[in-house]
Amino acid sequence: MKRVLLQIEYKGTNYFGWQKQPNLITVQGVLEDALSNFFKQDIALNSSGRTDAKVHAFRQYAHFDCDTNIDISRLPYALNSFLPNDIKIKDAKQVDNNFHARFDAKKKIYQYYINNSPFNCALYNDFCFHVPQKLNLRKMKKACGFFKGEHDFTSFCAKREFEDKFHNIRKIYYIKMSTKNNIIKFEVCGNGFLYNMVRIIIGTIIDVGKGKIAPQEIKKILLSKDRASAGQTAEPQGLILFDVKY
Amino acid sequence: MKRVLLQIEYKGTNYFGWQKQPNLITVQGVLEDALSNFFKQDIALNSSGRTDAKVHAFRQYAHFDCDTNIDISRLPYALNSFLPNDIKIKDAKQVDNNFHARFDAKKKIYQYYINNSPFNCALYNDFCFHVPQKLNLRKMKKACGFFKGEHDFTSFCAKREFEDKFHNIRKIYYIKMSTKNNIIKFEVCGNGFLYNMVRIIIGTIIDVGKGKIAPQEIKKILLSKDRASAGQTAEPQGLILFDVKY
Repeated sequence: MKRVLLQIEYKGTNYFGWQKQPNLITVQGVLEDALSNFFKQDIALNSSGRTDAKVHAFRQYAHFDCDTNIDISRLPYALNSFLPNDIKIKDAKQVDNNFHARFDAKKKIYQYYINNSPFNCALYNDFCFHVPQKLNLRKMKKACGFFKGEHDFTSFCAKREFEDKFHNIRKIYYIKMSTKNNIIKFEVCGNGFLYNMVRIIIGTIIDVGKGKIAPQEIKKILLSKDRASAGQTAEPQGLILFDVKY
Repeated sequence: MKRVLLQIEYKGTNYFGWQKQPNLITVQGVLEDALSNFFKQDIALNSSGRTDAKVHAFRQYAHFDCDTNIDISRLPYALNSFLPNDIKIKDAKQVDNNFHARFDAKKKIYQYYINNSPFNCALYNDFCFHVPQKLNLRKMKKACGFFKGEHDFTSFCAKREFEDKFHNIRKIYYIKMSTKNNIIKFEVCGNGFLYNMVRIIIGTIIDVGKGKIAPQEIKKILLSKDRASAGQTAEPQGLILFDVKY
């Protein structure tokens, strides 16, 4: 038995997210079908984590176990021609049988793109959230700083996943914000993320830009442990799982 | 009668190019329908030039004449909600009745993107030409320089458009080439372009990168005035009409 780690890129636009679901087209479903056909055995993927419908991945990772003698490094060449245009395996390697794509992830990096122009973007509308209102970029940049460090992110989680509040503590290493023309790009790096956490963080920073929330209120929102105190959930298509560090 | 100039952005993936054609979905066709419905009169667009199927535009320009009292600057706000996601009007202004979007164009700038990695790009495959082979970037950069200046571009034209060879003379101001990760980006600026000219220039530069053509052979290919002496026509989806200068 070999344990194989895949590096996968996908455009989430036409998928109901990563996780396999009955009667819905998902990235995991498409990949498991292709792998199971190829290896002529049932293959089950364990990813670094789920991504929502329309969310993209530049480098998602997932492992699986299989009985095979093929040279694993050739797997992307063998499989990519059977995969749709919007899902590609960029790398495959054998890993230790104790390795786990989710539990061994040390850092995750997400990127988020906002189109801050009066009209939605014809070219890249699958990859950005359109916010036509004037935004105070200086205040948004200031807000980014308040997320840094270890916090209880219950206020930035779509639903309480665990009764034990301890499990909602995550560490943000940085949130970088940069602008080019009318595109605002965020890079968020942390040791782990709760459900919808990046999208609620970005949505709250947008509300800071609109003047609805003062930058220093982020501290108070974190302490409140109340989802209702944070801002909107930013739309999914602006989000890319950029990389996972093991 | 007012003459109106539109600045238009579109993703060409799902269109049979700019030019209106019976029974095919084209950018011009979609825009003329929306404008004719809005103004309740037949509107005919004159663009800066055609773009092929799957070719994109960041800033395409087109003018039209119409009888109206509405504030032209409000036109994008009024029309964009009736347009598909992949076509947006970014600006509209009244221009002099002698202005012509095609004949008054002084410079055109195109961008072209190559994905030079082993596997096609899942995220941006609608926006780049996948060239998996190893390319000699230094030689490609050298080749770019030989296109600069005024030349007869008959060798870089899909078909002879005019009997009079004089009309195949165009001036290239620059071809810039830059690389980031596995993406090679070109920017081509000229006073005008023949049919498929940018795509044949890029295809020829790719053949230089593959070692099929030496950089200095570009001079000879230009002088030959023979399409067969130049390289392949690069795929359409890598091409973006970036801007037109009036």
